[in-house]
Amino acid sequence: MRKRKGAEDLLANHPQYVITNPEEAKGHWHEVFGNDHPIHIEVGSGKGRFITGMAAQNPHINYIGIDIQLSVLSYALDKVLKADLPNVKLLLVDGSSLTNYFADGEVDLMYLNFSDPWPKKRHEKRRLTYKGFLDTYKQILPENGEIHFKTDNRGLFEYSLASFSQYGMLLKQVWLDLHASDYEGNVMTEYEEKFSNKGQVIYRVEAQF
Amino acid sequence: MRKRKGAEDLLANHPQYVITNPEEAKGHWHEVFGNDHPIHIEVGSGKGRFITGMAAQNPHINYIGIDIQLSVLSYALDKVLKADLPNVKLLLVDGSSLTNYFADGEVDLMYLNFSDPWPKKRHEKRRLTYKGFLDTYKQILPENGEIHFKTDNRGLFEYSLASFSQYGMLLKQVWLDLHASDYEGNVMTEYEEKFSNKGQVIYRVEAQF
Repeated sequence: MRKRKGAEDLLANHPQYVITNPEEAKGHWHEVFGNDHPIHIEVGSGKGRFITGMAAQNPHINYIGIDIQLSVLSYALDKVLKADLPNVKLLLVDGSSLTNYFADGEVDLMYLNFSDPWPKKRHEKRRLTYKGFLDTYKQILPENGEIHFKTDNRGLFEYSLASFSQYGMLLKQVWLDLHASDYEGNVMTEYEEKFSNKGQVIYRVEAQF
Repeated sequence: MRKRKGAEDLLANHPQYVITNPEEAKGHWHEVFGNDHPIHIEVGSGKGRFITGMAAQNPHINYIGIDIQLSVLSYALDKVLKADLPNVKLLLVDGSSLTNYFADGEVDLMYLNFSDPWPKKRHEKRRLTYKGFLDTYKQILPENGEIHFKTDNRGLFEYSLASFSQYGMLLKQVWLDLHASDYEGNVMTEYEEKFSNKGQVIYRVEAQF
């Protein structure tokens, strides 16, 4: 992804959407949103189509889009601004450091969409469904908290099902061709639309700690 | 499947391969085989290509093919006779009654291949990966016993992954396109060859109690 000119300023100029001091928000996210609605986060929210689509569909849920790429996050901000969504916040932080920004059990539900597959075995620890990340997610989710994960990457999905299971998580439901299923209310990511149009199958799982 | 003329006689005439009094074999399968090799069973062994292929590959494992259809089992017997496989026995019994024929922990590993998908929700209890069947399998397998399951049926595989997980089983490894993977030593069933040739993806999972 090319660097976007002015992305840094754009993010800095919208502190009502882009949380620049997330350590201070830890344990206080309901105050940040100004309500007591559930908090759902997406780790690796990319250009934000999913998080903004979900937020528009569900005004009584608070969404936090998290991405480590500045330019990418700035495109998500474009969408938040355009749709004027008070129930979205954006965070420019790393997925492995979530416990710095969320108190134990503060996140009600977590989404992972089309995460980087890191196909090489030696990069296993970078996959967002690696047990090291699951430790982090478990801490910020409530007891029996859930991860809703979708991807078109077969290897990553195979890996993730086994990783969730080996972590002791319960696979509540699995979709091996989401778009051919009767699942309703699917909000596509940019990537999902592009690759499903090319005939790629979309996998989905709801896994519970 | 059409009834095969003479199938009943064929089975009756080969008691060294077709165990006609399996209740008496319960707890004594190593005596039946005349050795102490591990015992692997396939529930729904159909025309026997898998079980005979595995038996030829692994002479130091004992295989028991189980099917409720008499004609189908007679075709499996053809293959056993042709290949002259002392490490195969066949059982004409129902998958739900396995505890009548196997003592606790007597089966070392269990295969399910291309089981009937029973797609209608009201037939869920007939699916061989339904929890009622898992109760049975758990009893005859050792602690941490495994089920190795493959199918081309997406709905059945989705169901089975969740069913195994909800039963508390561990998904050790999952294949979402077995034939495109680096899995070695796959022995195809008749059905598998036919449908994979038509472009159907083959799913596989190794699940552990």
